Amino acid sequence: MSDKLKRMKTILAEVTDLSRAAAVLEWDQETYMPPGGVAARSDQLSTLLRLSHVRFTSDEVGRLLSELEEETAGLPYDSYEASVVRVTRRDYDQEHKLSPELITEVARASSTARPVWLKARREGDFKLFAPALEKNVELNRRIADALGYKDRPYDALLDRSEPGMTTDELEAIFAELKKAIVPLIADIARHADAVDDRVLYRGFEPAVQVRYALDVVSKLGYDLERGRQDISAHPFSTSFGPGDVRITTRVSRDFFNECLFGSIHESGHAMYNQGMGDDIDRTPLWGGASPGVHESQSRLWENLVGRSLPFWKHFFPSLRSAFPEPLRGVDDEGFFRAVNRSYPSLIRVEADEVTYNMHVLLRFELETELLEGTLKVSDLPEAWNERVKSYLGINVPNDREGVLQDIHWSSVSFGIFPGYTIGNLVGAQLMEKVRADIPDLEAGFERGEFVALLAWLRKNVHRHGRKFTPNELLERATGRPLTAAPWIAYVRRKYGALYGIKPARI
Amino acid sequence: MSDKLKRMKTILAEVTDLSRAAAVLEWDQETYMPPGGVAARSDQLSTLLRLSHVRFTSDEVGRLLSELEEETAGLPYDSYEASVVRVTRRDYDQEHKLSPELITEVARASSTARPVWLKARREGDFKLFAPALEKNVELNRRIADALGYKDRPYDALLDRSEPGMTTDELEAIFAELKKAIVPLIADIARHADAVDDRVLYRGFEPAVQVRYALDVVSKLGYDLERGRQDISAHPFSTSFGPGDVRITTRVSRDFFNECLFGSIHESGHAMYNQGMGDDIDRTPLWGGASPGVHESQSRLWENLVGRSLPFWKHFFPSLRSAFPEPLRGVDDEGFFRAVNRSYPSLIRVEADEVTYNMHVLLRFELETELLEGTLKVSDLPEAWNERVKSYLGINVPNDREGVLQDIHWSSVSFGIFPGYTIGNLVGAQLMEKVRADIPDLEAGFERGEFVALLAWLRKNVHRHGRKFTPNELLERATGRPLTAAPWIAYVRRKYGALYGIKPARI
Repeated sequence: MSDKLKRMKTILAEVTDLSRAAAVLEWDQETYMPPGGVAARSDQLSTLLRLSHVRFTSDEVGRLLSELEEETAGLPYDSYEASVVRVTRRDYDQEHKLSPELITEVARASSTARPVWLKARREGDFKLFAPALEKNVELNRRIADALGYKDRPYDALLDRSEPGMTTDELEAIFAELKKAIVPLIADIARHADAVDDRVLYRGFEPAVQVRYALDVVSKLGYDLERGRQDISAHPFSTSFGPGDVRITTRVSRDFFNECLFGSIHESGHAMYNQGMGDDIDRTPLWGGASPGVHESQSRLWENLVGRSLPFWKHFFPSLRSAFPEPLRGVDDEGFFRAVNRSYPSLIRVEADEVTYNMHVLLRFELETELLEGTLKVSDLPEAWNERVKSYLGINVPNDREGVLQDIHWSSVSFGIFPGYTIGNLVGAQLMEKVRADIPDLEAGFERGEFVALLAWLRKNVHRHGRKFTPNELLERATGRPLTAAPWIAYVRRKYGALYGIKPARI
Repeated sequence: MSDKLKRMKTILAEVTDLSRAAAVLEWDQETYMPPGGVAARSDQLSTLLRLSHVRFTSDEVGRLLSELEEETAGLPYDSYEASVVRVTRRDYDQEHKLSPELITEVARASSTARPVWLKARREGDFKLFAPALEKNVELNRRIADALGYKDRPYDALLDRSEPGMTTDELEAIFAELKKAIVPLIADIARHADAVDDRVLYRGFEPAVQVRYALDVVSKLGYDLERGRQDISAHPFSTSFGPGDVRITTRVSRDFFNECLFGSIHESGHAMYNQGMGDDIDRTPLWGGASPGVHESQSRLWENLVGRSLPFWKHFFPSLRSAFPEPLRGVDDEGFFRAVNRSYPSLIRVEADEVTYNMHVLLRFELETELLEGTLKVSDLPEAWNERVKSYLGINVPNDREGVLQDIHWSSVSFGIFPGYTIGNLVGAQLMEKVRADIPDLEAGFERGEFVALLAWLRKNVHRHGRKFTPNELLERATGRPLTAAPWIAYVRRKYGALYGIKPARI
């Protein structure tokens, strides 16, 4: 390794340490911090993040990057040296293109809009929030301009979170999804009685749920020597290094799905980080390839594994031992059916596997239209409600359960929503290849064996960290870039069977 | 406030944020961090502490300090501006006088000596540790030389932790203690049967102990809106700001004192930090006046309050409700007597109130003699054992329970031990004045009222933070500098009564 690369790695390690320290402080804030700690914690976080930004965007890093680009020009694309230089350059340019003034204005606009959004949502009155949203839309546009784009301003925002992805590409994928899923949703609605999920509401002792969930995720492969589970209001996963990747969960006595599937979801994120190579630690290569690819790991374990019949063939006996009372008279298949009930609902974060992507689609459409000026902020609630009716077949009774439900638009954050759907699609696309590579995969699940799946994901996804863009990673792992086909085939097969929908209709 | 002071405060705030972030990471390391987190955490901590040191010792701070010293020359000693400049100067000079090379050498020597000490202690073989200790003694000498001193090298080390305190002053105080306590220890030994503490070993449900201890400390005044209690191997208190001051405790089913008195001790430290003025936050004025003064707050609440009869008159009924089985047939006075049993023992951290200072005295004597070259490292075990015999009247069976017991000498840390005794003395000296100022103090304790004591400590000690040196603080609060007399009078009175020792003898 050259002296220049060594020097750059020293700085990158320091930047990593600062942002990981910030992550520890954020984890503490969501789990254990007493109420009085808010003010000081906010000071500490802003100091750490500012120092990390200043260090990373320093002239020295810029100079080293230029020199190292020459030095590594002849190396293979996927070599360690070329990759660390390429990905560091991408991050460096992104952070450099936004002026300190714009960054300050964005931070100020977000912190102004947050309480306004909270009030508007509480009162169900979009008009209160409209001026703040106007400002945020304008700032999203200015960020897109600052970052630059070829065709459409949304490309710039999308590329920031999902490198290499374009708006046109996503529009084509969402069109395919819409064509397949809107009729499936209608079919499911006509066969709604086929699935009964009342067992999930029979009351499950919270402490036992939390213990059981931790036991399940450790059996799936989440390494507790390098992780732990705590309770927080909103579940999340966070990493302070390869040896310390934590999850949180929440638990409700009255609804079973929250704790177990929340824990599996977060452990999917966490196993991704636990599987990243030690060789890329403390560099910009360490981390998820994109939010969408990260979500693919959580959704894969949550839905394609945790909501599969083979999974429940294995786990249901121990679940029934843990909860003999509420599970009286229920069998593995009945429970599998219950946790897979699908029905159109108003709130994205509560949506099931089939309807979820429609929630994302409408947000993606509205974001691009707002950004491109074809939709005015004042017309947003109407556009929202129309699309919910059109894609999900239900009426939105108020803005609180409609356009005001998500926290995202209270900050300057266009381009994030698509990652949720990309996650679902990537998960199904990877799983299709896993099934081809490991023929007895699901027989293994029935025996409680998940190590083959995890090993496949480690080899083809986890260890690479951010070395490849999402589409590069998918092409290497599955032979083609992002496609909706595997996910569409998966939900048609699974939900066709669950709801007894005739093949002709699907 | 001048622009220069504003600028300096901005830098000091950043330095504070970095060291508080490090404190959060250390807290997490002792409470929740999974085993795999060790390596990354050590990287993060060293980055944070290095950046904090670099920022604080920057030329800009030096320049601002010189300018501000001129600017504040005419202000009263205890004014905010003069104090922040004076205390920042003290810290700045201390950090500057040690060269980066010496700091690196000290860090390296400590991390080399730690495993050697662990092995030597495990095998009870001082000879293994002797070479590492030789090196540490030499480095302590070099630190003393670098810091500078008038009379004796130990002055430099002492002044670093207990500003303004001298070796001669401490020697005089310890001589007074030795004269009073050695005979008292012998008297207690002759009346050992007077106190029976077998009740403490009857088995107390750990979870109930932890809950009960938290309830007690919150009644004493530890504010849980700005704090919390967790479990760790070694109890400690830590602060991330005035709104977030935490304690940890440990618990043993087989020995009652550990959890409750540990929690009270740590809450004494924590109430000190919770009582520091908001006006001094994020400056070097925020923090304890010295480790000794900090210890005075923990020992005051632990011993002078928590081991007093009025305390137990109030708390014993609720303790008996919490533990009806082990406390069957015991009354408040019997329990008060049990928790105050005094007997000479080998291990400092397990020593009772009377014998504790003798453990500190012998370490102080040995440290000064090693530093001044009148004692050779090879002769240390013999010197240790002789003094334990002479001060406590017991034989040391092996080095593990003798000279190798403390972690302190495995790093370069001479000058720290005296703080433990200073804490005991300061606590008693303050309490004597509190009793004079609040005549019905102990009647209040019996009624469960501790707010008058806390208010007195807030006003006279806590709110000042590091504004005054220990002796300045004591003179302002009690009218005189550190003296052993109040503590000697207190233990003579209390233990004389407990053990039925005739006044003539004491």
